[in-house]
Amino acid sequence: MFQIKANLLQEAEALTDYWSPSIVGEVNDQYVKVAKLKGELVWHSHENEDELFYILKGRLRIQYRDKNIDLQEGDMHVIERGVEHNPLAEEECLIALIETKTTLHTGNVVSDRSRSIEEQLKAN
Amino acid sequence: MFQIKANLLQEAEALTDYWSPSIVGEVNDQYVKVAKLKGELVWHSHENEDELFYILKGRLRIQYRDKNIDLQEGDMHVIERGVEHNPLAEEECLIALIETKTTLHTGNVVSDRSRSIEEQLKAN
Repeated sequence: MFQIKANLLQEAEALTDYWSPSIVGEVNDQYVKVAKLKGELVWHSHENEDELFYILKGRLRIQYRDKNIDLQEGDMHVIERGVEHNPLAEEECLIALIETKTTLHTGNVVSDRSRSIEEQLKAN
Repeated sequence: MFQIKANLLQEAEALTDYWSPSIVGEVNDQYVKVAKLKGELVWHSHENEDELFYILKGRLRIQYRDKNIDLQEGDMHVIERGVEHNPLAEEECLIALIETKTTLHTGNVVSDRSRSIEEQLKAN
């Protein structure tokens, strides 16, 4: 189903929509996704799953209720399960994500930015 | 236990030994590791776990019994469970890995290059 190899930056650059992750691979029970971000997502949490962010290009702030984590190219950050957060990209930012296959990227919040796994696979 | 953020390339550059992965993070039931490679590892497979390679710097050839996959900076490649393989780095290569927490990096083969999870955590 997936390419035998993928250049993550090129896959992310090819995306046309912001905040619409595309699945580019799978490893064990996790999906590897790329996404193009700009602006702010929405406050949410994932009750049972951690979410790994890796910055391919640009900068991203992960807003928590009690602090901000500022990430730049090459940085990895894991958002632990159950912790409310909201990503903010002041300029366009390209990322890779590792998430459990069942994770909805807006977590417990369904918004007009929520994309089902089926939609994320179609974008591939 | 782990840093809240980690620059994967810097973590890999800080390693002193070849073929000795260091765990830098965890996401769900997977470890994120970095490793510095040079030369050839050993033919092996992981019966029940896939293994994701991401090239941070340099080039890496994944040798399979029936083909080679050549990876360069920014490329991701997933070695599927049960498939015999042997990584070869003609020059020094820095990588990130995603593996199930129980995966031994030399799989079904115990060699002098095998490193237990405890050793990989100690290197951190």
